[in-house]
Amino acid sequence: MRRARGGARARCGLNKIGVAYHPKSEAARRVAEEARSRLDGRVSEVWCASAWDDEARDAHIPGTDLLICCGGDGTVLRAARAVIPHPVVLLGVNLGRIGFLTELTPSVLWDSLDDVIGGEGRIESRAMVETDTVRAGEELAAHFHALNDVVIGRAAIGRTVQFGVRTDHTTIGNYRADGVIVATATGSTAYSLSVGGPILHPESREIIVTPVAPHLAPANSIVLPAGARVAVEIAAGQQAILSIDGQPDQELRGGDVVRVSASPHVARFLRMGPPGEFFLRVGRRLNWLNE
Amino acid sequence: MRRARGGARARCGLNKIGVAYHPKSEAARRVAEEARSRLDGRVSEVWCASAWDDEARDAHIPGTDLLICCGGDGTVLRAARAVIPHPVVLLGVNLGRIGFLTELTPSVLWDSLDDVIGGEGRIESRAMVETDTVRAGEELAAHFHALNDVVIGRAAIGRTVQFGVRTDHTTIGNYRADGVIVATATGSTAYSLSVGGPILHPESREIIVTPVAPHLAPANSIVLPAGARVAVEIAAGQQAILSIDGQPDQELRGGDVVRVSASPHVARFLRMGPPGEFFLRVGRRLNWLNE
Amino acid sequence: MRRARGGARARCGLNKIGVAYHPKSEAARRVAEEARSRLDGRVSEVWCASAWDDEARDAHIPGTDLLICCGGDGTVLRAARAVIPHPVVLLGVNLGRIGFLTELTPSVLWDSLDDVIGGEGRIESRAMVETDTVRAGEELAAHFHALNDVVIGRAAIGRTVQFGVRTDHTTIGNYRADGVIVATATGSTAYSLSVGGPILHPESREIIVTPVAPHLAPANSIVLPAGARVAVEIAAGQQAILSIDGQPDQELRGGDVVRVSASPHVARFLRMGPPGEFFLRVGRRLNWLNE
Amino acid sequence: MRRARGGARARCGLNKIGVAYHPKSEAARRVAEEARSRLDGRVSEVWCASAWDDEARDAHIPGTDLLICCGGDGTVLRAARAVIPHPVVLLGVNLGRIGFLTELTPSVLWDSLDDVIGGEGRIESRAMVETDTVRAGEELAAHFHALNDVVIGRAAIGRTVQFGVRTDHTTIGNYRADGVIVATATGSTAYSLSVGGPILHPESREIIVTPVAPHLAPANSIVLPAGARVAVEIAAGQQAILSIDGQPDQELRGGDVVRVSASPHVARFLRMGPPGEFFLRVGRRLNWLNE
Repeated sequence: MRRARGGARARCGLNKIGVAYHPKSEAARRVAEEARSRLDGRVSEVWCASAWDDEARDAHIPGTDLLICCGGDGTVLRAARAVIPHPVVLLGVNLGRIGFLTELTPSVLWDSLDDVIGGEGRIESRAMVETDTVRAGEELAAHFHALNDVVIGRAAIGRTVQFGVRTDHTTIGNYRADGVIVATATGSTAYSLSVGGPILHPESREIIVTPVAPHLAPANSIVLPAGARVAVEIAAGQQAILSIDGQPDQELRGGDVVRVSASPHVARFLRMGPPGEFFLRVGRRLNWLNE
Repeated sequence: MRRARGGARARCGLNKIGVAYHPKSEAARRVAEEARSRLDGRVSEVWCASAWDDEARDAHIPGTDLLICCGGDGTVLRAARAVIPHPVVLLGVNLGRIGFLTELTPSVLWDSLDDVIGGEGRIESRAMVETDTVRAGEELAAHFHALNDVVIGRAAIGRTVQFGVRTDHTTIGNYRADGVIVATATGSTAYSLSVGGPILHPESREIIVTPVAPHLAPANSIVLPAGARVAVEIAAGQQAILSIDGQPDQELRGGDVVRVSASPHVARFLRMGPPGEFFLRVGRRLNWLNE
Repeated sequence: MRRARGGARARCGLNKIGVAYHPKSEAARRVAEEARSRLDGRVSEVWCASAWDDEARDAHIPGTDLLICCGGDGTVLRAARAVIPHPVVLLGVNLGRIGFLTELTPSVLWDSLDDVIGGEGRIESRAMVETDTVRAGEELAAHFHALNDVVIGRAAIGRTVQFGVRTDHTTIGNYRADGVIVATATGSTAYSLSVGGPILHPESREIIVTPVAPHLAPANSIVLPAGARVAVEIAAGQQAILSIDGQPDQELRGGDVVRVSASPHVARFLRMGPPGEFFLRVGRRLNWLNE
Repeated sequence: MRRARGGARARCGLNKIGVAYHPKSEAARRVAEEARSRLDGRVSEVWCASAWDDEARDAHIPGTDLLICCGGDGTVLRAARAVIPHPVVLLGVNLGRIGFLTELTPSVLWDSLDDVIGGEGRIESRAMVETDTVRAGEELAAHFHALNDVVIGRAAIGRTVQFGVRTDHTTIGNYRADGVIVATATGSTAYSLSVGGPILHPESREIIVTPVAPHLAPANSIVLPAGARVAVEIAAGQQAILSIDGQPDQELRGGDVVRVSASPHVARFLRMGPPGEFFLRVGRRLNWLNE
């Protein structure tokens, strides 16, 4: 790949391109099929699968240069976790609401297809976090990577959960709250944003920790350095749910410690627009550019 | 009962006093037993029961003048709903964290017991809301009264829910959010406070509507007049949970409409302190009086 | 005037209509002149003046039935104070950004002119607050009425001011902050909204108190009953500015007490749209109706 | 100086120590005098001056190893700017309210004095920003360094100001607001915190941009990489004030562009406590550790 100002450029000669789609969206499937047929014959190999069909998708991923994700941000988040540890570049195509991860509409995709195949565009590298849980002194088997966020939250609406947050042996807070969000830069425009969290530059490596609806306390976020290790301990007698990129993944009990730190993996996005486009999109969606 | 400045006063001659306690708190049970034995022989009838033992409690309630609630705010909330429609006055005794509904510590209770029995103190009347749900055009049987709040929220952490909020045929908002809180003045110092809602004077009748973590939109509350009718409609294909005073009570489906409006019932609290004490308590807990 | 559901209706037979305009806006002046010429001959008397020309404006006000205000929300706020104590009905026409007080665009005004002259529409009555200042035990001469808000704020950017807020002899808070906003229902969609305050129904009489950027404390608003008296005392050695509806009006010193309570006067707005339109306008501007 | 885990250590053999005090605080002056007399004879040179007496203070600074600042955070902020470009280490002693920059009380200072003289403790390096203003294409002479923040705000309470914020040629937002705060990690616990901004690790180099009370838009902060250049342009016809570390320093006009970026200088603080103490102090002051 050739280096370009502000990021790495896709190398000439993409050989294998995949297309994944949200299986519940008929529009996503149609766009995916069309992408496959337009790409057919123009690169060595093209494949197409449901983003939820783990088996089919995972069989195709090794050696794939680019994975076009048709759906919403959820489809892209799922793909980002699925391609690990392969250095597959992702391109999000939005069907429906514009998201922060799905840059292109289908019609812009068709217009850009030559450029995409030709290796044009920037590759934006996004930090991920990894997380595991310690219960009664033992690491549980489940180990996750997240592109947006790890959320430890109450099991039921209307009940707060009590937990302590530590970083590198220092206690940050003992909260009674709806939950706590540990987010990446990418996650800074997702759930974290809705509870008042800061927006980070897309290629930042910092980790954002934000309590959700803390009782009788301000809810300011804490931005920790890239290398920080965060531990969230559920207070005795409490129940909670661990959620990875919006997927509820594990029930937590009192005493469980969820650990979050930088993942060795990153998500690579193909960006066809200029670097500044991120802030334009943020500004437009937050009503910061409307007057 | 004698009228006093700023509220009704408990009439001379309390005849029947109940004591309810949180069954999981040994301290609450001990204080309840002690209250019963201290009251024994001083009024015509005294009873004591777990606040969770619906049968025992409900059998005693008719004719009860005063119900002393030993536990936390949850114990008082439960009692407030249980005494409906009887005009029982409530007195909260806190065991553990000081709450907004549990005014007295046990030692202050013992000091105040003569005054309580003698009918001293103000009676503060707190508005409640009532709520029911319409599904496919039919009212569901479940019908609730709430002293704090009615919360319509996401069924699972990490997933937002989409819903529309209307009042008297006007749409206020179509939110994608964690949920929406419809709170009374009493509830204004509970969950609603944690998401930035305003604090209402305890005897206000207004209804507060606040979105929780709305996506890409400010989260300002709306304060509606006492007579307002609020309807929250779950968007098609969504799932949600209805929670009454912190108790998850009912699963909601797409299309369900939760209706909330003023309840004909109120909660009556015996207040031994001056009227201004409410704001002092708020100010102290919000760090507004510390410098 | 005839009463209608949800508000008073303008009586048949408007006799005297005034038109006031923002003098710095050429567009406002042109619309005002056109309104005057379109009204000429259709009612007994029409006048037109700069909203800033106190003398001309005030000479015309007695006996005026309706005052059409051409400009922005500032022009309407100025008119609302100027017409006191006369029961002049106001109609805001917006030139430029749509405001919450200027309901009509010029073209809608021309379309509605027959209805306006004919006494159609609802009259919406909006609460105002009055304020004066006590310095060293003496009331200062200056006494103001506000339709939006009374703001006590720091004299200079970057410096916080310390002050105590009391209501009816109870201290609510001792803040170190940028300032405090005491707002009406009308003001709930102005500055108060920008710092997270709640939105009140337009005809509510409650008073909202909100600290601006308090240091190390949550910034929840307090909503006080219509009859509440609020006192803000500047701490010793501090300087502050008193601002009425956005006009900096008076320098404050340490020890000064600014008192705010309901004004005996109200602002009367002619509303051509349905009552629910207020929430639609709020919802649209806050991005609550966009998905 | 010796390197230690987590930071540089003060070198053995401090030769020249200064003491600066807030001139309006009698307590600060007394502590400063006492510090001078306790240090006298224990290092080669000791000096003492008002932190506001630029001439005396600046004459002493060259060659000073350590400057003990007696007062509040304002005294330390002033010293941090005054010592530029000399590598003087600062030690804040608080007289009155505990601040984030004044770590020690006088009594802890006396207990630590041997350690301080002996070169114990960590040196914490804090990023600063520099700022200048371009008017009509020309750089104004005034050029400032800030340890906490650069604030561009409205000239008068009750009036919003309109401005655009750009970073590296991308527009972030066009705000109508009270102002905008451009803060360092150190400033993240000052004014920026009060408007909801995130808390950064003390040694972070990122730059935080936060609108203050933006009209009809969420107020989330943006955290920019250390190397970012921020430009704030005042809209035509607007007036504003530029404030450096809480000192109003310059009137701004429509069209002025204030530029902010990382300063080549840093502030060096002597820290006697462990690195985690920062978060403990934050947690305690934000009520995050109280239950």
